[in-house]
Amino acid sequence: MQVDRARIELERRLGPSRVLTSPDACAAYARDDSDVEGRLPAAVVVAASTADVAATLEIAERFGVPVTPRAGGTGRTGGAVPMEGGIVLATHALARIKEIDRQNLIAVVEPGVVTGALHAVVEAEGLFYAPDPNSLESCMIGGNLAENAGGPRVFKYGPTRDWVLGLEACLMGGRVVRTGKRTVKGVTGYDVTSLLVGSEGTLAVFTEATLRLVPRPASIATALVLFSDVRAAARGVGAIVAAGIVPRCLEMLDAATLGAVRAAGVGVDERAGAMLLVEVDGDAAEPALLRVGEVATATPGCLDVVVAQDAAQRDRLWAARRMLSRATRKLAKHKLSEDIVVPRSRIADLLARMDDIGRETGVRHLSYGHAGDGNLHVNFLWDDAAERPAVDRAILRLMQATVELGGTLTGEHGIGVTKAAYLPLEQSEALIALQQDVKRVFDPRGLLNPGKIFPAGGHRAC
Amino acid sequence: MQVDRARIELERRLGPSRVLTSPDACAAYARDDSDVEGRLPAAVVVAASTADVAATLEIAERFGVPVTPRAGGTGRTGGAVPMEGGIVLATHALARIKEIDRQNLIAVVEPGVVTGALHAVVEAEGLFYAPDPNSLESCMIGGNLAENAGGPRVFKYGPTRDWVLGLEACLMGGRVVRTGKRTVKGVTGYDVTSLLVGSEGTLAVFTEATLRLVPRPASIATALVLFSDVRAAARGVGAIVAAGIVPRCLEMLDAATLGAVRAAGVGVDERAGAMLLVEVDGDAAEPALLRVGEVATATPGCLDVVVAQDAAQRDRLWAARRMLSRATRKLAKHKLSEDIVVPRSRIADLLARMDDIGRETGVRHLSYGHAGDGNLHVNFLWDDAAERPAVDRAILRLMQATVELGGTLTGEHGIGVTKAAYLPLEQSEALIALQQDVKRVFDPRGLLNPGKIFPAGGHRAC
Repeated sequence: MQVDRARIELERRLGPSRVLTSPDACAAYARDDSDVEGRLPAAVVVAASTADVAATLEIAERFGVPVTPRAGGTGRTGGAVPMEGGIVLATHALARIKEIDRQNLIAVVEPGVVTGALHAVVEAEGLFYAPDPNSLESCMIGGNLAENAGGPRVFKYGPTRDWVLGLEACLMGGRVVRTGKRTVKGVTGYDVTSLLVGSEGTLAVFTEATLRLVPRPASIATALVLFSDVRAAARGVGAIVAAGIVPRCLEMLDAATLGAVRAAGVGVDERAGAMLLVEVDGDAAEPALLRVGEVATATPGCLDVVVAQDAAQRDRLWAARRMLSRATRKLAKHKLSEDIVVPRSRIADLLARMDDIGRETGVRHLSYGHAGDGNLHVNFLWDDAAERPAVDRAILRLMQATVELGGTLTGEHGIGVTKAAYLPLEQSEALIALQQDVKRVFDPRGLLNPGKIFPAGGHRAC
Repeated sequence: MQVDRARIELERRLGPSRVLTSPDACAAYARDDSDVEGRLPAAVVVAASTADVAATLEIAERFGVPVTPRAGGTGRTGGAVPMEGGIVLATHALARIKEIDRQNLIAVVEPGVVTGALHAVVEAEGLFYAPDPNSLESCMIGGNLAENAGGPRVFKYGPTRDWVLGLEACLMGGRVVRTGKRTVKGVTGYDVTSLLVGSEGTLAVFTEATLRLVPRPASIATALVLFSDVRAAARGVGAIVAAGIVPRCLEMLDAATLGAVRAAGVGVDERAGAMLLVEVDGDAAEPALLRVGEVATATPGCLDVVVAQDAAQRDRLWAARRMLSRATRKLAKHKLSEDIVVPRSRIADLLARMDDIGRETGVRHLSYGHAGDGNLHVNFLWDDAAERPAVDRAILRLMQATVELGGTLTGEHGIGVTKAAYLPLEQSEALIALQQDVKRVFDPRGLLNPGKIFPAGGHRAC
């Protein structure tokens, strides 16, 4: 077996301690935080250096063995699941923050750095790294790069890609390239950095990233705004944006989500059928939040504005927001969270379509998410495995509605395995073929993270 | 001749009025705003639709004829010069602003829209499109996309790429693809949009762009800060950034540039050997500018802070900044402007190296530019063609110093023809080869804008 020969060669080159092969050890690398069925790899390489990563990709190519890169393993679409077995290439042990350059507002980090840990280190220096995926206490920069991760603060600050100046990456066959720069500006050659960020581990494996930082915002102000229903809340979002205010976060919770919040013991006015969590930062956050309050209060259907009085109260609001993913998981035996995006003005339309879809398929659902960006986590809930075909019909209908409303299939989770079949709904055959041609430049034999992004069996419409 | 057959087919398909062939008409498309020697194309297609662009690329590929895309023709590195003759594909007549969507903060535009005209239209709606290349009164969005154009406001707002959500583009052979999305968030597939932006017309020809807008900043405040010399001014830049202030513009002028400004009749304190032009915007621009003033005044070598009292005075300051390119051109018969970038903290080092280079090569030079980004326009001046070899030695030395200081060859002009030979100074052979492989995916026969970006004759080090 080629995979056994690859394993023997990996042990010889990297030392046996870096190559896990027992089923018990490998089991921890079989799946991610999606509902994609796990698959046991034949071996796991725990890389301790760029050279380890390069050697693994050289050996894998030589023996024709698939490789699935992995950082924190917190992905939501199966990106780190080794769909064809082979080798999992784990980068969590490459976890150094190599440099914080205060003068040039740059951090140089390895892929295994936990995102929340990076926040803590740069904020202690008076600096700020904005991307804040919900899993920030456990997800890692490597995965954030692979998925172009988002989070609530994307509304003002942009996703991970906007924070990456340069990369060190290993390509199949073991070539190491450095892309990009250490400066914000720079237009030398093609933007290979942006091409690699968000490529879901299918083009290269990251070993270092040069990240942009900004000064830590001088002040932050946070408020909850309660509305009678989501349509009113969507109007509130539109009114805040139309007023020229750019909050750093503009999060929405629908009625069913508020129900889950109440069930988790957080008191929320019973009249409220939707809620916005608004956070403003900058030199003058409080006056800006006051304006948010004025605009929101003038929106028909607004019930109340509750301003966080201090950092502790703000932390409690965010703790409630961050626990939504877990709290809603308790509502049913199975939960599946999508992350579609529609133009901001179509949020209410999308939620109305979801009500239709729920009625017609009989599938329970709730929605919350980054309303400022039009990026909603539509969650499907079911208890009985027999309901799964109905859930799949509902997901397909959601994806169709999203594209019809001018939206996109995924705002921050990536396509991965779970959404690959829907790709032709959004992208033309020509664009998909072009991307597959680009993929072949990086990975001619299709060994790097196979089974991700592209629909199986060519450009099949679903 | 294949080019004649292509021309006949173009005239048949597009109508003769869209295909210019007389030497007089073609002469206007032979060069751009660089010192690259012009080259007469065999024909110029003035496209009036996406279909025209697609047909041209289909016919050019069929007959094996090179195609050079062109929008405003204001580029500084030869990007629009038809190095191998063939067809110039002009997109300036595709000049519609198709949509301004206030609710979703989006503009949909064609490539022939003049950048300054777009500014005027969106600002009248209370919106803002930040990229502001110096040539904004004549450059066009198509060229801005091709070069990933910058401008003073990049420091706060990022370059053109950060403002592009989606594209319609035509590929060699005539395929039309739509990339990206109408939402800020969205991670479906590879970021083909970012790959195309900044590809200098070598991968695709743009026919439409979906651009991100933001609310127009509520207030703007502008000041000049005079310093004894550039080292002091560079310290001022560092101090402003270290204070956590993010001006939208942070421009620097060195002593020789100030001399040109004075020669053009603008009064500047004779003691000043360097100047910063600082502009702050946002909800509270004036308090922020006051802080800039305090920080600057506390910097050793600061001579004076002059705050613009009203919009008219601000416009005069910017008019003086914008005329620099022309004013400095009068200082010698020949002028060549580079646009290197170094990490902000290395600006003073780079300028010191330039003094050495000037002394050793005997070439006159002056520098100004976007100091906040570390992006300096180093200008070389000479009168006698016999000095050109010394100028070329000075440019090579500048590029070497830039890379040694952790910088990049070009911040906003692109590599084009003029910097192609220097690419291997900054990028590895592996990265250059990878980009050429990507180029072949889009343009297997190398017909689209040949002679740009990549050094002639493979990966030759210079």
